[in-house]
Amino acid sequence: MAEKKTSLKQTKKVNEKSRNVKTKAPSKKSADKTYKGKNIPTKNSNRPHKKQETNVSKKNVRIIPLGGIGEIGKNITLYEYDGDMIIVDCGMSFPDADTPGIDIVIPDFTYIVENKDKIKGMVLTHGHEDHIGAIPYLLKNFNIPIYSTKLTLGLVEYKLREHSLHNISKLYEVKAGDQIKLGKFAVEFIHVNHSIPDAVALAIKTPAGVIIQTGDFKIDSTPIDDNMIDIARFAELGKEGVLALLMESTNAERPGFTASEKIVGESFATLFRKARKNRIIVATFSSNIHRIQQIIYEAEKCGRKVAVSGRSMVNVVNIAAQMGYLNLPDNILIDIETIKRYTPEQLVIVTTGSQGEPLSALHRMSVGEHRQLELIPGDMIIISATPIPGNEKTVGNVVNELMRRGANVVYEKMYDVHVSGHACQEELKLMLGITKPKFFIPVHGEQKHLVHNADLAKGVGIKKENIVISSIGNVIEISDKAIKISETVPAGRVLVDGLGVGDVGNIVLKDRINLADNGMIIVAVAIDSVTGEVVSGPEVITRGFIYMKESEELMNDMNETVCDILERCYITGTKDWNGVKVKIKDGMSRFIRERTGRTPMIIPIVMEM
Amino acid sequence: MAEKKTSLKQTKKVNEKSRNVKTKAPSKKSADKTYKGKNIPTKNSNRPHKKQETNVSKKNVRIIPLGGIGEIGKNITLYEYDGDMIIVDCGMSFPDADTPGIDIVIPDFTYIVENKDKIKGMVLTHGHEDHIGAIPYLLKNFNIPIYSTKLTLGLVEYKLREHSLHNISKLYEVKAGDQIKLGKFAVEFIHVNHSIPDAVALAIKTPAGVIIQTGDFKIDSTPIDDNMIDIARFAELGKEGVLALLMESTNAERPGFTASEKIVGESFATLFRKARKNRIIVATFSSNIHRIQQIIYEAEKCGRKVAVSGRSMVNVVNIAAQMGYLNLPDNILIDIETIKRYTPEQLVIVTTGSQGEPLSALHRMSVGEHRQLELIPGDMIIISATPIPGNEKTVGNVVNELMRRGANVVYEKMYDVHVSGHACQEELKLMLGITKPKFFIPVHGEQKHLVHNADLAKGVGIKKENIVISSIGNVIEISDKAIKISETVPAGRVLVDGLGVGDVGNIVLKDRINLADNGMIIVAVAIDSVTGEVVSGPEVITRGFIYMKESEELMNDMNETVCDILERCYITGTKDWNGVKVKIKDGMSRFIRERTGRTPMIIPIVMEM
Repeated sequence: MAEKKTSLKQTKKVNEKSRNVKTKAPSKKSADKTYKGKNIPTKNSNRPHKKQETNVSKKNVRIIPLGGIGEIGKNITLYEYDGDMIIVDCGMSFPDADTPGIDIVIPDFTYIVENKDKIKGMVLTHGHEDHIGAIPYLLKNFNIPIYSTKLTLGLVEYKLREHSLHNISKLYEVKAGDQIKLGKFAVEFIHVNHSIPDAVALAIKTPAGVIIQTGDFKIDSTPIDDNMIDIARFAELGKEGVLALLMESTNAERPGFTASEKIVGESFATLFRKARKNRIIVATFSSNIHRIQQIIYEAEKCGRKVAVSGRSMVNVVNIAAQMGYLNLPDNILIDIETIKRYTPEQLVIVTTGSQGEPLSALHRMSVGEHRQLELIPGDMIIISATPIPGNEKTVGNVVNELMRRGANVVYEKMYDVHVSGHACQEELKLMLGITKPKFFIPVHGEQKHLVHNADLAKGVGIKKENIVISSIGNVIEISDKAIKISETVPAGRVLVDGLGVGDVGNIVLKDRINLADNGMIIVAVAIDSVTGEVVSGPEVITRGFIYMKESEELMNDMNETVCDILERCYITGTKDWNGVKVKIKDGMSRFIRERTGRTPMIIPIVMEM
Repeated sequence: MAEKKTSLKQTKKVNEKSRNVKTKAPSKKSADKTYKGKNIPTKNSNRPHKKQETNVSKKNVRIIPLGGIGEIGKNITLYEYDGDMIIVDCGMSFPDADTPGIDIVIPDFTYIVENKDKIKGMVLTHGHEDHIGAIPYLLKNFNIPIYSTKLTLGLVEYKLREHSLHNISKLYEVKAGDQIKLGKFAVEFIHVNHSIPDAVALAIKTPAGVIIQTGDFKIDSTPIDDNMIDIARFAELGKEGVLALLMESTNAERPGFTASEKIVGESFATLFRKARKNRIIVATFSSNIHRIQQIIYEAEKCGRKVAVSGRSMVNVVNIAAQMGYLNLPDNILIDIETIKRYTPEQLVIVTTGSQGEPLSALHRMSVGEHRQLELIPGDMIIISATPIPGNEKTVGNVVNELMRRGANVVYEKMYDVHVSGHACQEELKLMLGITKPKFFIPVHGEQKHLVHNADLAKGVGIKKENIVISSIGNVIEISDKAIKISETVPAGRVLVDGLGVGDVGNIVLKDRINLADNGMIIVAVAIDSVTGEVVSGPEVITRGFIYMKESEELMNDMNETVCDILERCYITGTKDWNGVKVKIKDGMSRFIRERTGRTPMIIPIVMEM
């Protein structure tokens, strides 16, 4: 990372009491002044604060979510002030039943590309895929300096390396407590708790006021790294005056307070004891380094070695260990290839697949296709995660298969083996209460989450007209008096399938879903273009409709139906081959519907010679 | 129903204290003796109990689950004793991501059809689709007398009518407390609580002993119909000696006790008050007649009319009302077509779609496509159900859309608007504790549910070797000494797609999933079979791969690739057209993979002339 830190613009944070404030000596070029709240110097300005404050004419701030609103995933927000822009996060989302065959979904970057000369930089809140996953696709368009904490940048760099973009990238490391200047914006990084280390919230300072974007957060009074969310700084900003708060909504439906990560460690302790002489396999999110740390601590206590399985798990453990985010006791890690040398009671295996993903290590174990590990009855398997909505069935299927192999599976709400990384209602209200924003924009959630979050804001006294539930592509314009949606810009989803970015659109998806539901029938025929006679065929081929070899009668009847249609066309002496195609399509559709009650896609091919 | 009750064989139940015992005068032919426990007279026997007991040589009971084990849905169990067979339930299940385009899934009836002469009848526990949905498909094979309670038969009859089978069907009504004789079996019906009225458990009596199959049940001390599960009868049977218990496992993962249906009514009361002058829309399962009853009572209290929307909801309300299972205050029901004549505060609409089903009434409301009802901001919508695993995302999407239209949506755990119809761990343990079975077979659940249920049984002291976690198709053989799986019979799933039953198998499904994920490319060419020259084409057509109109370059390159392949074939002078097809397939696959990173299905068509 270090070699890429070239011209980090950073200023010393005002709140000296905050933890983690180890600012670096700023380079001469970037030596902006220390400043407070709304009091921001224009670029290279040396004017005193007082003077400057009166001189700056306040313009509206424009906030433009291009993702992450009305959906879970692909979080990305643009901030615009007086011709300058910054980007906060640049995430991807995963495909669902409506997007079969799609690898990942990224935001539509049209508006960013149109305004690329205004972009001063990108700021990242943390290293989860839904906040960093689309960066390579944006950087393929044009290069942008990226600012974030050490671990986040480590994960970004790994991702860029996969896309061969790491050599051109400009990654600038900051620490919680730091503040950087990006054009007319200053951005302060505030430490928060989340299910990945090094997560930060942002205080985005503009002449119009301070805007806080929480990123993903929870309030954990007993975090694994003993580094609690910097509540004091949020409160201080609240006291100084916060123009607007953009707060995540993931758990806005859930009452109460999210439990501390520490209780998962306690469950591990209990379960590791209960495992006795059996092997222990723990599946969790590879990015949940604190979780992995707890597994390692517990393994050490029981005198067990830890092997890691699954590509992303191996990668993240390596990155986190190298960067010092994972404390590894001597010789605790062993290679998964060597586990056969150990007895079951000497082993803990940490693995991917907590969402039941079909290609993951845990799934492969469940179906007996894991190369290095065969399950044995008595294996204790802990799924340290809850299914993301939509994955319930896949996870359930993996649990069933694991149990069928005699494993003792601990999952879901048994034994508190998972806690959320997101704030529940009481935490959200607390954040609202201490930052006291004038305007509130719930982000990071589907409509139902946003609505609940807005209800919480109303509950703590924020006026209804000061809350905006937005959609992506809306330009939310904030003056010191009012908030409104002033216009819309292009926004949406871009589908990545293989090497193709954006070449699968709605028509292709519609065809895919149609093919999956109904299958298809190809009718090919060669016709003499002069005489109109059939010179070869018709040939009828089906896929996903019936098993042709076992449906001889239907195949014959389909063939006969086509022959009848062609015969009728021939008699009319038509040379309109498109018309013939339409007749084949319509005739066959009718025949198939009456005979089978189904509606396969019919593709007629007429070859003229 | 009454006109079909022809030769109901029923005997007076021994336990006169049980509720609902209104036995009918048995016809002479069917006048079997009253008997207890294992003490079963052979057919037409008039010998006294004592004698008979010693004379009967005990054979093994064979229990053969053909569905409902290792899965949720298509419940069906065969009981076999000394050449006689009975069937318990005959349900369907719903398709999932692995079965795209499939309408419903039914059990494989091979073994039943092979043994049709042994079948003495079918007994149904209750009227849910996963217990009665496959009956028409079995009755198309051969006719079987069916025995169950009034409402269950009412729902079966409706279903048979849809398949034009109602005229041939033989439906015999029983009441909880009744006992019928079916060959060497006697079956006693025991009242249970569940999310549909008229549900019963079965005590299946054989010379080898009594087997209890619970069906779906919960223990509700304050049910809506004031008719609590007949705990006394279960306990009595337990005292007399129960050979085996087959108990449902749906909620075996859940600790505690399922809440009473009554608390949903209390939530409705609170919410109906909160709705004030707004319209109220409640979505629930159409079969949950007690739930609908509570909505109707609450509507009456608030002076609101009730309109019903959704085909299945209208049907079930009609059937239940006609049969006296729904108490309708005068003029409370209005036609959905007339709701415009009422103000919002005068209306409650009961609707289908609580699982987010795409064609349901609630879904249509959410996307503004409901013919009679347009949502208005302020509408209170109560989703009185929890998503069935796999439906979480669909339900969430409907909630999002409803909220986007300004509705106030109450769902999931808010306000206790739903309780389960299935027993949780404490109820399951109670049932185990009072029936005290020698052998235990958990049924009605996926592997994880069965394992948890088996663990509960171990917890109450049933020996491990007396518990069998089975698979469908296993023949579970029970003597008075031991339980074992003796052999397997054909079992599996049969897919219904349109009018086709069983003609969509694994190859077709694999193609459907492949087409959905990757799309396809058709390459058609006509070749002179004598010269080997291409006389027409090649024509390249894609579906679900790229949008052809926007991918001219790729389309041209694909065409060129095919031309090159054909050219090379031509030069070799080959007349092996299958070989040419293989070359087209391989060459195109390689080109596409390198160019796009994708693997569409490639279908080469070579027409010879």
